[in-house]
Amino acid sequence: MAAKTCNVLITGANRGLGLEMVKQMIAKPCPGRQIFAGCRNPEASKCEDLRELARKHPGEVHIVQIDTSDPRSVADCAKKVGPQLGKCGLNLLINNAGVMPHNTLKTITARDMQDNFNTNLLGPIMVTKEFLSYLQAASKACGKAGMSCKKSAVINISTLLGSMARTHETFYAFPVLAYRITKAGLNMLTVCNALEFKEDGILFVALHPGWVRTELGGQEADISPKESVEGMLRVMESLSERQNGAYLDYKGEVLPF
Amino acid sequence: MAAKTCNVLITGANRGLGLEMVKQMIAKPCPGRQIFAGCRNPEASKCEDLRELARKHPGEVHIVQIDTSDPRSVADCAKKVGPQLGKCGLNLLINNAGVMPHNTLKTITARDMQDNFNTNLLGPIMVTKEFLSYLQAASKACGKAGMSCKKSAVINISTLLGSMARTHETFYAFPVLAYRITKAGLNMLTVCNALEFKEDGILFVALHPGWVRTELGGQEADISPKESVEGMLRVMESLSERQNGAYLDYKGEVLPF
Ligand SMILES: NC(=O)c1ccc[n+]([C@@H]2O[C@H](COP(=O)([O-])OP(=O)(O)OC[C@H]3O[C@@H](n4cnc5c(N)ncnc54)[C@H](OP(=O)(O)O)[C@@H]3O)[C@@H](O)[C@H]2O)c1
Ligand SMILES: NC(=O)c1ccc[n+]([C@@H]2O[C@H](COP(=O)([O-])OP(=O)(O)OC[C@H]3O[C@@H](n4cnc5c(N)ncnc54)[C@H](OP(=O)(O)O)[C@@H]3O)[C@@H](O)[C@H]2O)c1
Repeated sequence: MAAKTCNVLITGANRGLGLEMVKQMIAKPCPGRQIFAGCRNPEASKCEDLRELARKHPGEVHIVQIDTSDPRSVADCAKKVGPQLGKCGLNLLINNAGVMPHNTLKTITARDMQDNFNTNLLGPIMVTKEFLSYLQAASKACGKAGMSCKKSAVINISTLLGSMARTHETFYAFPVLAYRITKAGLNMLTVCNALEFKEDGILFVALHPGWVRTELGGQEADISPKESVEGMLRVMESLSERQNGAYLDYKGEVLPF
Repeated sequence: MAAKTCNVLITGANRGLGLEMVKQMIAKPCPGRQIFAGCRNPEASKCEDLRELARKHPGEVHIVQIDTSDPRSVADCAKKVGPQLGKCGLNLLINNAGVMPHNTLKTITARDMQDNFNTNLLGPIMVTKEFLSYLQAASKACGKAGMSCKKSAVINISTLLGSMARTHETFYAFPVLAYRITKAGLNMLTVCNALEFKEDGILFVALHPGWVRTELGGQEADISPKESVEGMLRVMESLSERQNGAYLDYKGEVLPF
């Protein structure tokens, strides 16, 4: 009964952590697997690395256009990707696309807040919603009890900066009010979805990648994308129904909300 | 040095908890105090109770037009109210206006999510921002160290449903995904503002009113608006810098994020 192929969708996959995830996944052969690498502007020069990967792995890496901040773009993407998933459905959705503008209450505008909300929070909501039937299909096709990232799972890429209990540790170093608010909201989305789709056997986890040297993290960050993604993939492999709704870091440690 | 008058602004004050707050505050005489009672539609029939209160307490209860979901309305309100605050500034801002539509990931639309975000989260952000200089003025005018609701404070009316740690207890009884997400975001706003404006001596607290019999809470709720507001006002009176950034209920108990 268990479906062999493993279909994965990663948003924001043209650079940073998303691109590194595609690279490390391909490095582990898995017959029949398809990786749908989302990016909002597939023709742009900043997608060249991803295009190169897709050329080298035809049939395995598919570049798909998706601007997560735009509900129509998300719906269009689901319409295009859905039929390519086949009976296996979508096994793993990684809501990775995100932006971190600098702002505080003093400097923020309504527009800033809305834009950040649209990408970091509305994005994961609408992507999960549009791909829900494929996640449910994957869970059914698996035919086994329990939960896992091989069966059917949504990983929301969160951040330590979304932890209210630990905000005092990082607040002055990272003046990113809208980002903190949207990521706390993303954690709540994870907790709620974990409960709403428990019976469907879909796993939901919020994952903090560490402080990583990407454009978003900056060059003074703690770890490389390689180390972060190695950690996150290891954690993803280890997840079961026991972690449904959890907020973890790339080492598997539980974070406080 | 200490300013005698106490200026208060409450959003969503025409019914429910906001109206009850105005009523209970007036019942305790305080010479020179001004209560600015916000409502989005001052002429509407649902504002009759508030208009009646304003007629009975001229100079003390001022009805002010404010639709918290509309940044222009918020800015206009600040422009009108600001000059009336005088040297005392604004001592207490209660971000109370809120809506709780029923939705789950399955039923929600992007529009639902954005609307809920605009009232429950963007609203408190923009109201606090627009009134910030008056809160700072109040803190300065007080001339005393420490923090209190008499000096300068922002109370964000949150909810237990915004607690991720306790979502499993309430999830199936209250299918309100957008509400939970926006209120978790409101808690994060409270935590961040508490840190950003610590040096200004402005106190920020997120307060859960209990489950209350209002239009939002429903008639099967646990407690009356009277009991809830008595509790919240008691908690507000007791607050000091020790509670800055806290998430409390109407009995003063700390809630987990
Ligand atoms: N780096 C860190 O230290 C760190 C720490 C904690 C959490 N995170 C989280 O990790 C995730 C990835 O971050 P990163 O460090 O890899 O950042 P990054 O290098 O800046 O990459 C961000 C990616 O998201 C994409 N993106 C942004 N807005 C989008 C939208 N509206 N639609 C579709 N794609 C969009 C970008 O595409 P474009 O190229 O088109 O802009 C890019 O591919 C984010 O969710 C971030 O919050 C990162
Ligand atoms: N009742 C409970 O059990 C409970 C529990 C936890 C938290 N809370 C929170 O307590 C607060 C007050 O709730 P309530 O029970 O008093 O609700 P309510 O009886 O429904 O009253 C809500 C108030 O908010 C106003 N409002 C809504 N959207 C607005 C907007 N965009 N601009 C300005 N005003 C707006 C309403 O004005 P209109 O008359 O114009 O609609 C009304 O005055 C809310 O933040 C709610 O989340 C309530």
